[in-house]
Amino acid sequence: MITLSSDFGTPYPAAMKGVVLQSTDARLVDVAHDFPRQDVRATAFWLREVLPYFPPAVHLVVVDPGVGTDRKAVVVRAGRHAVVAPDNGVAIPAARRLAEDVEVFEIEVEDPASSTFHGRDVFAPAAADVHERGVEVFDDYPGYEPLEDYATVEFPDPDLTGDVLRGEVLVVDGFGNAITNLPGRVVEDRFGDSVRVNRDRVRVEPSYAHVDPGERVVTVGSHGNVELAVNRGRGDDAFGVDPGSPVELSL
Amino acid sequence: MITLSSDFGTPYPAAMKGVVLQSTDARLVDVAHDFPRQDVRATAFWLREVLPYFPPAVHLVVVDPGVGTDRKAVVVRAGRHAVVAPDNGVAIPAARRLAEDVEVFEIEVEDPASSTFHGRDVFAPAAADVHERGVEVFDDYPGYEPLEDYATVEFPDPDLTGDVLRGEVLVVDGFGNAITNLPGRVVEDRFGDSVRVNRDRVRVEPSYAHVDPGERVVTVGSHGNVELAVNRGRGDDAFGVDPGSPVELSL
Amino acid sequence: MITLSSDFGTPYPAAMKGVVLQSTDARLVDVAHDFPRQDVRATAFWLREVLPYFPPAVHLVVVDPGVGTDRKAVVVRAGRHAVVAPDNGVAIPAARRLAEDVEVFEIEVEDPASSTFHGRDVFAPAAADVHERGVEVFDDYPGYEPLEDYATVEFPDPDLTGDVLRGEVLVVDGFGNAITNLPGRVVEDRFGDSVRVNRDRVRVEPSYAHVDPGERVVTVGSHGNVELAVNRGRGDDAFGVDPGSPVELSL
Repeated sequence: MITLSSDFGTPYPAAMKGVVLQSTDARLVDVAHDFPRQDVRATAFWLREVLPYFPPAVHLVVVDPGVGTDRKAVVVRAGRHAVVAPDNGVAIPAARRLAEDVEVFEIEVEDPASSTFHGRDVFAPAAADVHERGVEVFDDYPGYEPLEDYATVEFPDPDLTGDVLRGEVLVVDGFGNAITNLPGRVVEDRFGDSVRVNRDRVRVEPSYAHVDPGERVVTVGSHGNVELAVNRGRGDDAFGVDPGSPVELSL
Repeated sequence: MITLSSDFGTPYPAAMKGVVLQSTDARLVDVAHDFPRQDVRATAFWLREVLPYFPPAVHLVVVDPGVGTDRKAVVVRAGRHAVVAPDNGVAIPAARRLAEDVEVFEIEVEDPASSTFHGRDVFAPAAADVHERGVEVFDDYPGYEPLEDYATVEFPDPDLTGDVLRGEVLVVDGFGNAITNLPGRVVEDRFGDSVRVNRDRVRVEPSYAHVDPGERVVTVGSHGNVELAVNRGRGDDAFGVDPGSPVELSL
Repeated sequence: MITLSSDFGTPYPAAMKGVVLQSTDARLVDVAHDFPRQDVRATAFWLREVLPYFPPAVHLVVVDPGVGTDRKAVVVRAGRHAVVAPDNGVAIPAARRLAEDVEVFEIEVEDPASSTFHGRDVFAPAAADVHERGVEVFDDYPGYEPLEDYATVEFPDPDLTGDVLRGEVLVVDGFGNAITNLPGRVVEDRFGDSVRVNRDRVRVEPSYAHVDPGERVVTVGSHGNVELAVNRGRGDDAFGVDPGSPVELSL
């Protein structure tokens, strides 16, 4: 199985699929191709939340603002999974969820056909190749070299001081739910039926429909983090937040 | 075969697919993941129009504004098809097209991992389970209980009084075609080459390109209902209608 | 393998897939379903750039502003590929890339179920049929007649006079890159590190990230043509161009 993730929109991912299918019969599963354009951090977050639900697979990930420069191409081995991606850190948070130990290999790239579409000319052939060879004895394969010094994406840690929990919005999903880096269990443990969000008191509920349509709500999302939401509305608008906005929860 | 329908956008459906693929090798086919957000009625309409074209399949449908409340999760058996969905009626119009008799079973849900993403934590595992067990002898399976009192979505009946046909716009498709609840055969039988739509006289044609680009047209869509359209333009804008808008056709 | 391309958005392509899967177990691969609506030329361009990356396949293409009129339905045979499409030229540029010689066959259409959705009622059954019969001995099949006089899409040739290269923008991709009909090798051969684009001097670089974020750049895209782009921004906005806009490159 090969999953595909990119910020390409259409129809570029189809060219990647064509290339992959030239050399493998693997099942192909799209994760998303509308990740925020050239946003390595947001994509890294989403992959960390989604890829662990898959059975062992090769994950082809191309969010690649540095295409055509000297940034490396890598395969990240994580247990029985492998993530093929540019060396910009996009794959690392997901890989660390997939397995305790991850190993990174540089793909030796020889003169790709284009300097602007390595998804098609570098990463897709590598994903097919890794799928056909298998990920188990990976470091023996010619063309892949262990890489110690690779790029990572780190998400900021929240700060809990007294009864004040400070963090930020990591991403906003398509419903407008603002997903923070604040761990849900702190809210469940520390706060009661309501909490102050940047000063305003808001109800804490297990899901959206526990408040009236249009009402704001603090909930713990499916990723385990605090979400700022509105029942049948957009939390980002109602709370006035975007990715990167600071969020402070207090009693 | 398992089809997938939701209002999730991306990348949430990929988590559902990962979960499904943990326990089945079924072919997965996306119906759509951009159904109007939390719009049970519009989704119910589209599923009724699309699912009957599939060979026997399990259909996973998650448009679920009541997630995390006490709304039930159900499997609707319709002939050799099964629809796995929340008990909000979204599955019923399609099921009634798929088979004359439909039976509804409640899925016994035990402590899902999240209260905000039952697509991943309840419906996806159930769809995989139903697919693997088969839909034929469904009521013998532990964990599924016959349910007599389930939610439905009903579409309004049009009203034909004399030579005036009254109804409403049910949905607007991506081209801007406004699809009504008015049966096409009435137009074909009763009206001639043109008809008054809310007073304005408009041509009746078998398809869009029979009128000039930019011109309004009344046609019978692929679903058999009257459509208000514009050749190479948007019917909803030109007729000033939205889902729910009243439509009156007269001589 | 059957690929699917359309301007349908959702959920109409799912009805096509259902119909196809009624009569074949072929792998289905979406190319795109958000091609610019009813834009035969833009779709023809993209198919030419994407379909050649696929192994032998049947390609189902439905961008069909003339649906329900007397425009024909065709199968275009190109080597071991076949493209099933309306006879509006959308398939021809891709077919000519797929094989040196292309042959066009008219599909005999008998009374389709609708006059507005031939994707579902004409092209999908034909694609499944061609896939099951195979493309090799195509002209022996009943229901398909050789067609000499078929529609084509031609892209305009650029004009090179002295050191001035004139052409136009063919399409704009989702990143905002404006893809022209100007051959990349001319830029690489004739111009140096920079070139005048409609008077303004702009750097020529192998890819986007060679200039600063927000800076304009002329590059050769993955299709081999000159692209007007902005690093981490939109080239169409920065250069003030749309599909069809004239582009003049000079020293």
